[in-house]
Amino acid sequence: MQKDQIRQGRLAGDRSEAILHFLASMDADRWIAEADLLVDMAHLLMLRRQGIIGEEPARALMAGLLDLHDTGLPESAFNERFEDIHAGKEAYLIERVGEEFGGRLHMGRSRNDEVATCIRIRLRSEMLGMMHEICGLRQVLLDAAARHTETIMPGFTHLQYAQPTTLAHHLLAYEQAFARDSARLRSTYERVNLSPLGSAAFASTGFPIDREYTARLLGFAGIAANTMDAVSARDFALEAISDAALCMTTASRFCEELILWSTTFAGFLQLDDPYCSSSSIMPQKKNPDTAEIMRAKAGSVAGELVAALTIVKGLPMSYNRDLQELTPHLWRGVEAARQSLPLLAGMIQSASFNTDRMQSEAGKGFSTATELADVLVREFDLPFRTAHRVVGRAVRHGSLDLATLEAAAADAAGISLTARGLTEQRLGEVLDVRHGVSVRVAPGGPAPAATAAAIADRLEALAADTAWLDGTEAAVTDAIEDLIHEARRLIQ
Amino acid sequence: MQKDQIRQGRLAGDRSEAILHFLASMDADRWIAEADLLVDMAHLLMLRRQGIIGEEPARALMAGLLDLHDTGLPESAFNERFEDIHAGKEAYLIERVGEEFGGRLHMGRSRNDEVATCIRIRLRSEMLGMMHEICGLRQVLLDAAARHTETIMPGFTHLQYAQPTTLAHHLLAYEQAFARDSARLRSTYERVNLSPLGSAAFASTGFPIDREYTARLLGFAGIAANTMDAVSARDFALEAISDAALCMTTASRFCEELILWSTTFAGFLQLDDPYCSSSSIMPQKKNPDTAEIMRAKAGSVAGELVAALTIVKGLPMSYNRDLQELTPHLWRGVEAARQSLPLLAGMIQSASFNTDRMQSEAGKGFSTATELADVLVREFDLPFRTAHRVVGRAVRHGSLDLATLEAAAADAAGISLTARGLTEQRLGEVLDVRHGVSVRVAPGGPAPAATAAAIADRLEALAADTAWLDGTEAAVTDAIEDLIHEARRLIQ
Amino acid sequence: MQKDQIRQGRLAGDRSEAILHFLASMDADRWIAEADLLVDMAHLLMLRRQGIIGEEPARALMAGLLDLHDTGLPESAFNERFEDIHAGKEAYLIERVGEEFGGRLHMGRSRNDEVATCIRIRLRSEMLGMMHEICGLRQVLLDAAARHTETIMPGFTHLQYAQPTTLAHHLLAYEQAFARDSARLRSTYERVNLSPLGSAAFASTGFPIDREYTARLLGFAGIAANTMDAVSARDFALEAISDAALCMTTASRFCEELILWSTTFAGFLQLDDPYCSSSSIMPQKKNPDTAEIMRAKAGSVAGELVAALTIVKGLPMSYNRDLQELTPHLWRGVEAARQSLPLLAGMIQSASFNTDRMQSEAGKGFSTATELADVLVREFDLPFRTAHRVVGRAVRHGSLDLATLEAAAADAAGISLTARGLTEQRLGEVLDVRHGVSVRVAPGGPAPAATAAAIADRLEALAADTAWLDGTEAAVTDAIEDLIHEARRLIQ
Amino acid sequence: MQKDQIRQGRLAGDRSEAILHFLASMDADRWIAEADLLVDMAHLLMLRRQGIIGEEPARALMAGLLDLHDTGLPESAFNERFEDIHAGKEAYLIERVGEEFGGRLHMGRSRNDEVATCIRIRLRSEMLGMMHEICGLRQVLLDAAARHTETIMPGFTHLQYAQPTTLAHHLLAYEQAFARDSARLRSTYERVNLSPLGSAAFASTGFPIDREYTARLLGFAGIAANTMDAVSARDFALEAISDAALCMTTASRFCEELILWSTTFAGFLQLDDPYCSSSSIMPQKKNPDTAEIMRAKAGSVAGELVAALTIVKGLPMSYNRDLQELTPHLWRGVEAARQSLPLLAGMIQSASFNTDRMQSEAGKGFSTATELADVLVREFDLPFRTAHRVVGRAVRHGSLDLATLEAAAADAAGISLTARGLTEQRLGEVLDVRHGVSVRVAPGGPAPAATAAAIADRLEALAADTAWLDGTEAAVTDAIEDLIHEARRLIQ
Repeated sequence: MQKDQIRQGRLAGDRSEAILHFLASMDADRWIAEADLLVDMAHLLMLRRQGIIGEEPARALMAGLLDLHDTGLPESAFNERFEDIHAGKEAYLIERVGEEFGGRLHMGRSRNDEVATCIRIRLRSEMLGMMHEICGLRQVLLDAAARHTETIMPGFTHLQYAQPTTLAHHLLAYEQAFARDSARLRSTYERVNLSPLGSAAFASTGFPIDREYTARLLGFAGIAANTMDAVSARDFALEAISDAALCMTTASRFCEELILWSTTFAGFLQLDDPYCSSSSIMPQKKNPDTAEIMRAKAGSVAGELVAALTIVKGLPMSYNRDLQELTPHLWRGVEAARQSLPLLAGMIQSASFNTDRMQSEAGKGFSTATELADVLVREFDLPFRTAHRVVGRAVRHGSLDLATLEAAAADAAGISLTARGLTEQRLGEVLDVRHGVSVRVAPGGPAPAATAAAIADRLEALAADTAWLDGTEAAVTDAIEDLIHEARRLIQ
Repeated sequence: MQKDQIRQGRLAGDRSEAILHFLASMDADRWIAEADLLVDMAHLLMLRRQGIIGEEPARALMAGLLDLHDTGLPESAFNERFEDIHAGKEAYLIERVGEEFGGRLHMGRSRNDEVATCIRIRLRSEMLGMMHEICGLRQVLLDAAARHTETIMPGFTHLQYAQPTTLAHHLLAYEQAFARDSARLRSTYERVNLSPLGSAAFASTGFPIDREYTARLLGFAGIAANTMDAVSARDFALEAISDAALCMTTASRFCEELILWSTTFAGFLQLDDPYCSSSSIMPQKKNPDTAEIMRAKAGSVAGELVAALTIVKGLPMSYNRDLQELTPHLWRGVEAARQSLPLLAGMIQSASFNTDRMQSEAGKGFSTATELADVLVREFDLPFRTAHRVVGRAVRHGSLDLATLEAAAADAAGISLTARGLTEQRLGEVLDVRHGVSVRVAPGGPAPAATAAAIADRLEALAADTAWLDGTEAAVTDAIEDLIHEARRLIQ
Repeated sequence: MQKDQIRQGRLAGDRSEAILHFLASMDADRWIAEADLLVDMAHLLMLRRQGIIGEEPARALMAGLLDLHDTGLPESAFNERFEDIHAGKEAYLIERVGEEFGGRLHMGRSRNDEVATCIRIRLRSEMLGMMHEICGLRQVLLDAAARHTETIMPGFTHLQYAQPTTLAHHLLAYEQAFARDSARLRSTYERVNLSPLGSAAFASTGFPIDREYTARLLGFAGIAANTMDAVSARDFALEAISDAALCMTTASRFCEELILWSTTFAGFLQLDDPYCSSSSIMPQKKNPDTAEIMRAKAGSVAGELVAALTIVKGLPMSYNRDLQELTPHLWRGVEAARQSLPLLAGMIQSASFNTDRMQSEAGKGFSTATELADVLVREFDLPFRTAHRVVGRAVRHGSLDLATLEAAAADAAGISLTARGLTEQRLGEVLDVRHGVSVRVAPGGPAPAATAAAIADRLEALAADTAWLDGTEAAVTDAIEDLIHEARRLIQ
Repeated sequence: MQKDQIRQGRLAGDRSEAILHFLASMDADRWIAEADLLVDMAHLLMLRRQGIIGEEPARALMAGLLDLHDTGLPESAFNERFEDIHAGKEAYLIERVGEEFGGRLHMGRSRNDEVATCIRIRLRSEMLGMMHEICGLRQVLLDAAARHTETIMPGFTHLQYAQPTTLAHHLLAYEQAFARDSARLRSTYERVNLSPLGSAAFASTGFPIDREYTARLLGFAGIAANTMDAVSARDFALEAISDAALCMTTASRFCEELILWSTTFAGFLQLDDPYCSSSSIMPQKKNPDTAEIMRAKAGSVAGELVAALTIVKGLPMSYNRDLQELTPHLWRGVEAARQSLPLLAGMIQSASFNTDRMQSEAGKGFSTATELADVLVREFDLPFRTAHRVVGRAVRHGSLDLATLEAAAADAAGISLTARGLTEQRLGEVLDVRHGVSVRVAPGGPAPAATAAAIADRLEALAADTAWLDGTEAAVTDAIEDLIHEARRLIQ
């Protein structure tokens, strides 16, 4: 049987299953098993290039690593008695090539820098994936917005009908929010994509290693310089979870609206059946379950963030085992976001908007009262505060017809609106929902002209983000391909 | 192939793997699969007793249920296309006994009350388990305290040596804290151990069900009365996670001390090797990994609590699918506590306390200065604040010998202590660490007499808690045995 | 100028305003200033009774304390250079009666036990206050439920119309939830109402104090026994914040519904104007601001809980200054709940329910489909799952008229419902919303008979809770009155 | 008496003090009162420039605004009956210049965009302040590191002595971490420094406003384009709180070490008295209170983040009053960080490091065992894993002398080290702590040469950050000066 190589020297005593299970990180290590092989290869190429390891053991080890890379790690390497995949894999290699060769891979490094490097490699790819999903979602939102620049709907504040707006305006609000979620990930990426490798336990090593070389082989933009910081810092992970939590918060707000809009009383849209579930007892039910679970996942990711923050908060330098418990929170956090975003895109893309219902509701709740007050200012020279009070008083009396307005003006401001020239006809025009929307042409506003311009701008922004993303992804992919190529060259 | 029974009526369209996976709760449902069979049996016995179901279908269904109970649910029932185990199990039963019989089990209930009942059954048993583990831990602490009533050690405030105390006193502090953690679980248990069954979707049902009967069969103390509340409330789960989080916080504080005490510079104890790990690079290392991970798990459980609170916070009545996402946080929270507590007990039980080192450190840092100030009050009639200032000044000058004290008294209070009768001999007695401990005989204090009395009290409290726990557990076990017995009688 | 009595001995050097402000807890100490005087009086009575302090200084000090009690602490005692009110008050007393007397109050105690005692005294009263507010709210809910046992409304799952229910049923769900929130506080109260006094810094004291006596004087049910635990434990505070967070979560769910119900599209109720705000720009707006802020406060209290948990998590024994930072979170948490609950009661009491609108909506969304399926089971012997599929299929085809049902039955189950006896007339009866409600008579269900019985039960439970609360409050009040009385006797 | 201008129209009924207090944001509004005047001036200049307001009312209003700017807002404007400072200020202006003029300022905007703009202006300045404080702290760390490149100390993993390192290396780890905290703020700044003004309630306005002009006047880099997003998004605030929470987490870790290092048993440093407190009972105590409170504040800021995330999570578009409750969490979060950072810098700058003690501890705990294993690899060609096991076994036997090593090598690897050439002398050299440090010359490592190079690099990075910061701050300051200048020109 393969041995736990690390405990054999210093420690005695057998451990119970309960202890082994408590200490083991094997479930979470599946996330980084593949990255770990890349780290091994890069480290080994460097050891060889620096003359730290001889040719024979280097070739034997690399052959084993490439084999594992090609065929996958054996399940035995994930046995909890090894505590982590790094130990499990080392035991496998030593069994395969003997300790004389196999015992030489871990020179000049430690699990502390190894695991930090693995996490950054996998996280990097998760973040690129999330950014891709956000790009896809933004495209869906921009497409839908383009179809609905003329779709009038009620705009809300405090969930009360407030002023008419357009569906395009509403969808563009989310596109903008998700674009920021993506921008945050891009900022964080700079702090993630650095190599801790070579930091060893925290104090680097006396072997003549080349940290820049392994960083380059692994596609990192550079090294995480200070070696104590490199193994003990997890703020890059906290930041990534925070990004995921904020992104999921945006998604949750959208889901809240999808749920509201598909209620019987709102009736603004129908979600596509595949995103819905029925009830085991109520045969008529079509429930927006995907949106509900997604909304809930925003809470879950907030919880992951709290867990991670709390774990790190009081830790002294340098590495403490507490950090092992942090990593699953990272993976759960980013996974929730990666799973949710394309489903949100799918829900929106496949939803049927009841545009007639939206438009017919848009004028309810005296939603054009603001425009009326504005017109009283613009055309009849009332101070805004006076106009606001007059119109508000009329609403309190239940109507915005000319008679009620006139009475309200007399009562609340001691003036006559008809005397100032307000007519039934002008009032009717002003209270029309299309009028209120059409005059809101300020940049970022709901008027069709404004949203059309916004869509053009945002498509440009999306294209730029996509270009950056593609370039960044290509750089990583190329580096990894080169690494494998170098690895194969070593054993030829 | 078994069919998803619930979607066939109302909903059309196939769902992608991604949607199925997103909606499914199968992983978490393994926690409640066994409970679900008990719920089915109780419900079926009630349906039969009330004449709602005929004898033939009742017998056929019960035979199937008992089979599943005896041999375990087939893996096919956990397929994600069923979304949850309730649907997976129903599909299995319908395939087994035909729809004519199998389609009759779900009368008068819904998955909403079914799942709430299952969660309470499983949680109840987890909570009893946690309380058992806490009892075991308290016993270990009381035993260790009994061995160490005379073991002097430094007591800390602000992590500075403050006053000498005894190891018994320190351990008893934790016993008291864990007793409260247990008391909280016991309070919560009352709110958990109630049956939602019969609430159906939220509005109960028109079938003539008997909620009290199923509650009794399942070992509940009563029904969760209001049926809308019964399916939509999860405060019982929030409370249980909060209990777990507080308990883990106590454990984390203890672990912090185990980690500190086993440092090279403190050197107060040695943890047993099985609870420690070594380093992949540093051959000499013996690290307190179990304590570190346990400390971190306190952060994880805090995160589970936040997730659960955030998920529930804005939900309207009654059931919303968001609640499905809450349950895994519950299980993760209670599991972390259940795993940690016995390991903590084991760590303490197997640890070697370096009592000589503790005692020799106990007098450092002028730790007997408080007693000296107190004696200046008691025997030489200084006001306490004056005595405090005089002694403090002497410490600032670096010594508590008579000369320094005398100078400090002149300087800080304009008095002479020798003139009041303070002698070298008396000073020496007062500054002895054993003296300071021996006079602290107030209830709850560190003096050997006080800790011995405390241990006697606490053993009594522990016995009472254990008795309650055993009685409560027996009541549940008996009820479940009776239920199975009744179920078997039905098919005879 | 009064001096900081505590720093004069040991420490040198002046502190900047920034440091003073950072270290000071004066803002939060206003919460405990009054309690602190009670603690002083009890401690002083005990010192005198035990002969630890002479009569003259005892009388001088007590006169000063009673003066402060009667007229309030001077603002100078809150100056941040004293760091906390305990030091500020001691400096005041020493200035007033001289150090010879004034320097004797702090014998046999420390700020560590003093502040823990003060927090428990104030928290105790906050918790009793919260329980009172909950009782008031429950009464409002029960009164409203009694008026609305016949008010039919749509019941929701997943925010979709699900089955008809009654407003009484809905309100009773919240009454039950709030009753649990109150029960939690009552459980916690047992762990709060214990006296740490006499624990001193953590090791008790060599003075012959009487902890039981001071506990009794201050109205505590007993002592917090272990003195190290007594000064360093804050789980009582964590638990109280958790209770507040859970209670606010219940309140937040209710607010979510008040906000939804008062939207234009739902139109189920009108909140009273005083609980609403308007818009600075939109003259017609009436927004449910009180409900929105209350919903948000649930998030705030969750945040206070996280802060408090995180602060405590890694602290070793015994007192650490970190605990000072915890206390404001406690006060903010309980204050949010105490402020919110009566406003929630007021909102409900003053709201106008649009019962016609509720009833007319109750039948929409095929909300009686479940009852129809149940009737197909009960009267026409379909297996429930078959009935569910047939009705679901009819809904998918857009109608529950007999023809559509018949077609669905043929299609989905290969049967004829008319052949089994289903008639237009029976179908019409079954689909009537009043019918569906009237048959749901199970305990806790929505039928008028069931809710009337529930109201009677719950009024009884409320009366019992109120009786306990009144008795508990009286015990505290009586103790404090006796304490003041004893204090006045001392100086006569 | 000034009137609440906003309620007069639509709403009736008086509000209780309790409701007013619950709804009011006046305490938090003190943070933005000054910014609000700038927003008013910019908006007024724009209204005038676009011809939306006449010259006379514009001049009257601007005179009032400049007056308030020069002399401060009157306390009456903060009266809670106005709910917020925007309403309080408007009431003041209307009283001052009459409604005919005063009622015209709020044209084309709403409190929704007004408050979002104010928050961003104030937050912007808080963030620049935080970044300044971080620069100061980094300078202190780099200066201290420069003094201690030769100061050997124990390096820790798992709080166990691991390998010798240098104090410079340790301090540089924190400098690097704080630099990232600063980089995060800089990333966030881009998303904060955009103007929502002109978004009005959410739908912009029909008045011909110029959003770019007001943005420029207020020193923003551009507009927050989509007007619905601009008033309802608070992710910029969440992100800023997250930045503060992460920064405080770094600070908390450092404080944990300052607390540990100043314990009696570690004795690595003495904090300066002003940063410490004593005990009210223990005269000798010097406690690291500033570090403890700072550590706790990391928990507080984590709590603020949770509160803010939870509040936003389920909110539909657009503005909801819940957002008002979020803002105090933002201010508390950034204030905690701004207060803490300079105190942390001061603590480090004024601390006395006990370098002799550090060095003498550096060799304990077999801390040079890793170097020994490495030398066995490098000079005696053992596989690393073999060397690790041999050295670990020797440590288990209690010594690293040649005899024990030789026995361990025989036992654990079947080899002789002396036969391979290991001598007493070489062993002695290798086990010397200075040797182990001196060979760790990899970039980012602890060797004096490596830290000296790192300090040079980091000083350059700091200079670049400071330059950006100064430039950014100057741009804001210049814009605001120009705005005031334009405002004064209007009334000349």
